[in-house]
Amino acid sequence: MIIYNFKNDYSEGAHPNILQALNASNYYQEEGYGEDNYCNLAKKSIFEIIQSKNSDVHFVSGGTQANLIVISSLLKPYESVIAAASGHIAVHETGAIEATGHKINTVQTKNGKLYPKDIEAQVAYHSDEHMVKPGMVYISNSTELGTVYTKKELEDLSGICKKYGLYLFMDGARLASALTSPAGDLKFPDFARLTDVFYIGGTKNGALLGEAIVINHPDLQKNFRFAMKQRGALLAKGRIFGIQFVELFKNDLFYQLAHHANAMAMKLAKGLRKAGYDFLTEPVSNQIFPVLPNSLIEKLSKKFGFYVWAPFDESRSSIRLVTSWATKEEMVDKFIEELNNLA
Amino acid sequence: MIIYNFKNDYSEGAHPNILQALNASNYYQEEGYGEDNYCNLAKKSIFEIIQSKNSDVHFVSGGTQANLIVISSLLKPYESVIAAASGHIAVHETGAIEATGHKINTVQTKNGKLYPKDIEAQVAYHSDEHMVKPGMVYISNSTELGTVYTKKELEDLSGICKKYGLYLFMDGARLASALTSPAGDLKFPDFARLTDVFYIGGTKNGALLGEAIVINHPDLQKNFRFAMKQRGALLAKGRIFGIQFVELFKNDLFYQLAHHANAMAMKLAKGLRKAGYDFLTEPVSNQIFPVLPNSLIEKLSKKFGFYVWAPFDESRSSIRLVTSWATKEEMVDKFIEELNNLA
Amino acid sequence: MIIYNFKNDYSEGAHPNILQALNASNYYQEEGYGEDNYCNLAKKSIFEIIQSKNSDVHFVSGGTQANLIVISSLLKPYESVIAAASGHIAVHETGAIEATGHKINTVQTKNGKLYPKDIEAQVAYHSDEHMVKPGMVYISNSTELGTVYTKKELEDLSGICKKYGLYLFMDGARLASALTSPAGDLKFPDFARLTDVFYIGGTKNGALLGEAIVINHPDLQKNFRFAMKQRGALLAKGRIFGIQFVELFKNDLFYQLAHHANAMAMKLAKGLRKAGYDFLTEPVSNQIFPVLPNSLIEKLSKKFGFYVWAPFDESRSSIRLVTSWATKEEMVDKFIEELNNLA
Amino acid sequence: MIIYNFKNDYSEGAHPNILQALNASNYYQEEGYGEDNYCNLAKKSIFEIIQSKNSDVHFVSGGTQANLIVISSLLKPYESVIAAASGHIAVHETGAIEATGHKINTVQTKNGKLYPKDIEAQVAYHSDEHMVKPGMVYISNSTELGTVYTKKELEDLSGICKKYGLYLFMDGARLASALTSPAGDLKFPDFARLTDVFYIGGTKNGALLGEAIVINHPDLQKNFRFAMKQRGALLAKGRIFGIQFVELFKNDLFYQLAHHANAMAMKLAKGLRKAGYDFLTEPVSNQIFPVLPNSLIEKLSKKFGFYVWAPFDESRSSIRLVTSWATKEEMVDKFIEELNNLA
Repeated sequence: MIIYNFKNDYSEGAHPNILQALNASNYYQEEGYGEDNYCNLAKKSIFEIIQSKNSDVHFVSGGTQANLIVISSLLKPYESVIAAASGHIAVHETGAIEATGHKINTVQTKNGKLYPKDIEAQVAYHSDEHMVKPGMVYISNSTELGTVYTKKELEDLSGICKKYGLYLFMDGARLASALTSPAGDLKFPDFARLTDVFYIGGTKNGALLGEAIVINHPDLQKNFRFAMKQRGALLAKGRIFGIQFVELFKNDLFYQLAHHANAMAMKLAKGLRKAGYDFLTEPVSNQIFPVLPNSLIEKLSKKFGFYVWAPFDESRSSIRLVTSWATKEEMVDKFIEELNNLA
Repeated sequence: MIIYNFKNDYSEGAHPNILQALNASNYYQEEGYGEDNYCNLAKKSIFEIIQSKNSDVHFVSGGTQANLIVISSLLKPYESVIAAASGHIAVHETGAIEATGHKINTVQTKNGKLYPKDIEAQVAYHSDEHMVKPGMVYISNSTELGTVYTKKELEDLSGICKKYGLYLFMDGARLASALTSPAGDLKFPDFARLTDVFYIGGTKNGALLGEAIVINHPDLQKNFRFAMKQRGALLAKGRIFGIQFVELFKNDLFYQLAHHANAMAMKLAKGLRKAGYDFLTEPVSNQIFPVLPNSLIEKLSKKFGFYVWAPFDESRSSIRLVTSWATKEEMVDKFIEELNNLA
Repeated sequence: MIIYNFKNDYSEGAHPNILQALNASNYYQEEGYGEDNYCNLAKKSIFEIIQSKNSDVHFVSGGTQANLIVISSLLKPYESVIAAASGHIAVHETGAIEATGHKINTVQTKNGKLYPKDIEAQVAYHSDEHMVKPGMVYISNSTELGTVYTKKELEDLSGICKKYGLYLFMDGARLASALTSPAGDLKFPDFARLTDVFYIGGTKNGALLGEAIVINHPDLQKNFRFAMKQRGALLAKGRIFGIQFVELFKNDLFYQLAHHANAMAMKLAKGLRKAGYDFLTEPVSNQIFPVLPNSLIEKLSKKFGFYVWAPFDESRSSIRLVTSWATKEEMVDKFIEELNNLA
Repeated sequence: MIIYNFKNDYSEGAHPNILQALNASNYYQEEGYGEDNYCNLAKKSIFEIIQSKNSDVHFVSGGTQANLIVISSLLKPYESVIAAASGHIAVHETGAIEATGHKINTVQTKNGKLYPKDIEAQVAYHSDEHMVKPGMVYISNSTELGTVYTKKELEDLSGICKKYGLYLFMDGARLASALTSPAGDLKFPDFARLTDVFYIGGTKNGALLGEAIVINHPDLQKNFRFAMKQRGALLAKGRIFGIQFVELFKNDLFYQLAHHANAMAMKLAKGLRKAGYDFLTEPVSNQIFPVLPNSLIEKLSKKFGFYVWAPFDESRSSIRLVTSWATKEEMVDKFIEELNNLA
């Protein structure tokens, strides 16, 4: 029997403040499709937090939806997007980007991050009209391998993108975890300054659903709601996005939830390391990838939910453990205890 | 100052039972992406209600999303969908269907409904490979003009579709209102029997968000989740659909909410008729379209929220009044009172 | 037995000058994909003829290909193109435009032509982000009904398009016939001045295949070859376009061929009128639409090839007669003779 | 000054027999859009050559067009196509396949060929609805690296495709060269037996333009002309395809032209080998890839046209030499002579 689930950061519902806010606002008549007072309030909060009055904010229901709308809105038909081969759009979105007509130029990486040299190589390779023309760089922060970008790294990427006329788009499904990571030094205003578009993930940080797309580049803001409607992303009761993000950005709840998630992951990592195990990538956010003997993985999997990520060598594999705002510390302790018992 | 809003059926939040259920279920760890226990329970409820074990059910967040996924999944690239010119997909979805590559063949109608002769004319017109090939018929029930299909009408449509090898897809954003309309005689099992696919609207009948797509034709069921994921419709916390539809189909809540909406619309209609006004289409569901003098419309619009639908003649226009599960009867009375005062 | 075919203007091969030029150039090694010396020469000829050095010219193999590349290159994903309901893109291209993601907003017309009021009505109708946003106006000249635009009409259209920020695109599959029509007063430089993009049809005026797309608006010229390649329109031996258009624009051959086609159509029209028949639209180009008794049509169809266009009243229909550079005058005489015999 | 061009196999026009046939047929009135007598004759020739009466044949103007129509017709929206990373569709078609909505799953190869283990790995990797579902395998024969498949290899591939329910599609832009390669043992009937669809390249084997798509799988034949029209591939004067393929398959011209191209490539290869140079891939068809010192490449490039393919090591690169039906033997001799002089 499974004692506890470390499979993902969306196994539970929403933070209770959010449910309470849904209740409290329930009977007010509001405009539909995201033009309500709650969405306006939430946007105001975000403008303050990112310290950018000239950005635009829109709410959508999930990460794949955010990615496909942003990318298809920004690129011309023959333009492509450069991404890590491990990037969410390249692997786990069922070809959503290609379904809007665009090729993804993938780059093999060790840690899920892109560097200026990767961009330069892609730009150099795509030399004429018989090939697609890279028009955008897509990064995730934190990445699909749990790593986070530093300010220096993001500045360098932003610089190379500007040099080659590429838009920089940051997938922030797990941005909260990156912002509160011990390895990170980036703040919200940096994202507004260094990216053309990014989104702030709500679903994986305590919301029922909802990602806030922030468009910094003024040329990209026009008519974005047309693009959203066309892809089925304008919800009739769009208020639910506003209500939730207002709560998330009230009294630092957004950061507190992510801090808890990261703290639980760090505790897991510490226990694993103490037990003698290493990691596929440095554990710095709410997704960690310990490398364990296959025999131990099999035993653990009977007590805890998690994904086996990839074979490491003949006898070992990496697994993915994910924590969230809702992760119970006692269950983290229990995991380490069982780890030591079963080894 | 606006006293009350009859603009739409999504101005408020959700029925309190739904909010309560979200609370009660909040801390249970569930599978993501619609594979949780609540979605399974909701599907079971729907199978019972439609009396069809061989149908498949999937939940998505809104009507445009449902329409674009269903239509793009079912049609071959060169196939088109036949719809009323007033159909939601033809007018109010920002080209969502065309964005998936498919033409809509529109038919002018008086009441928003399609009839076998309309289908036959479209099939006859599209004669060779220089034209698209109609592959599906799209209807809305209730329609965008508030009308509803009778069992005889739906049987006839279903028959003509089978005759010509066309899929029949019914948009049920306001199916609850159609099912409880005084003018309707269709029941849930009829939809399972007579359509290839239909969806049951939740958003406009008391849910926060959510439409249940029911796929009856076995050939169309395969790999539908791939199509959903590709269009950004698989929500990480898909449980929120299951939780809501379980509530809606518990103790006939679904019908009760629609009954109330219809009753409020009928009361409005009665008052309007008594005051001497006629309607663009017969008022039989929660959307009614009275024809009023433009001068009166202007006065009313300062007190109540509603859309002016279309000019009727030089001095009159039709307006759209929409009621919902949340409409307050006192506000209906108030509207009629003001109508008589202002006239 | 069919004596002669008036079904279309592409029943024969190419003008002999073109075949001769293909022969003469056959063994010269040239660059591929339209970057050869012949294409460069042909472009130079076109620049001179249209008196516009700032235009760009590209060659593609057919009209549908030209239309789909131009429209999908110019529009943003949520933008639509306004066209006559009889427009080629709206009816006879198997949804090619929708297959690139764009809706066509159709306008009912009597003569296949669009007027400023049509454009204004479409712009007014599309009021918010729940509907597509018109981004372009598509016209054909000559139209699918054989009519041609006057300079005044095109200037007015161009003006209204500029007013509303719409691109004006002219399908010139039969531009040669329009340019040499007795009802027309437009010249090549007018097209460069008044449209954003137009194309010069070769296929229907003596070439084996080939349409020359002329892009006048400088913003639309960038990276057009990427769009062409992506849609499969860059031919390896692109030289065949250059070779043909060089010939067409040598010694006024282009005009001579169209003059002949029009003269043959006018002779047919004169004979038909003399025999007492009227026309669906005024016969002014190489497509004419006489209205004939159904019984006569049946008899004629056993001797000549042509399309029955549409029922006119209970006993009469319009037919389409098309002439070309290759139409034999004796066969025109024969047709009128038989018309009189069979009536 | 460039003496001669080995850049590609489409630098010249067409074989003289083809030009002669265009002349001879020029004034016959024929049906448009590929329904003419010449196309019918050409299809008959192909049915005989491939010994398959149940196949279907369609003509299009180029390889990218063939690839995008076939792939988008066969796959469901969420399905992907597996291809070598060096495959034409993956690199040199400006994202044409993605523009129709489909992802390409690429496999790194040494020689441009796919093997059953590659297919199995891709099928195993794509495990659920969060990823695309491979639906087709795309191979080129000869490949983009000049290699050819053996009968055993194609049978194995065909077997693995059937096992996993994948369509097998062979790009035959240079099929003639593969069929006449000293390293090949495949015949036309093998392609009809072992692939679901393949195409026979005309452009690179003596035609002006034209590829013959052969659809063997009966389920894939229906309505293919709709797909062609929608992508702009039905040429009004489709007769030019028929006329050309009739000539190519008359008196073994098709084979003779390819034999000549291969012989010229083998002569080049022999000279290069004798001069002490090796090859990136074994030279067996009309594209060969010798590895030469960069200094020599620079000198050669002033006398002959060719592409530098890729760096091999610090001081050497591979170049691509392509021969064709029109390659002059004296120029091959000249190349080897200069090679020895300049070394």
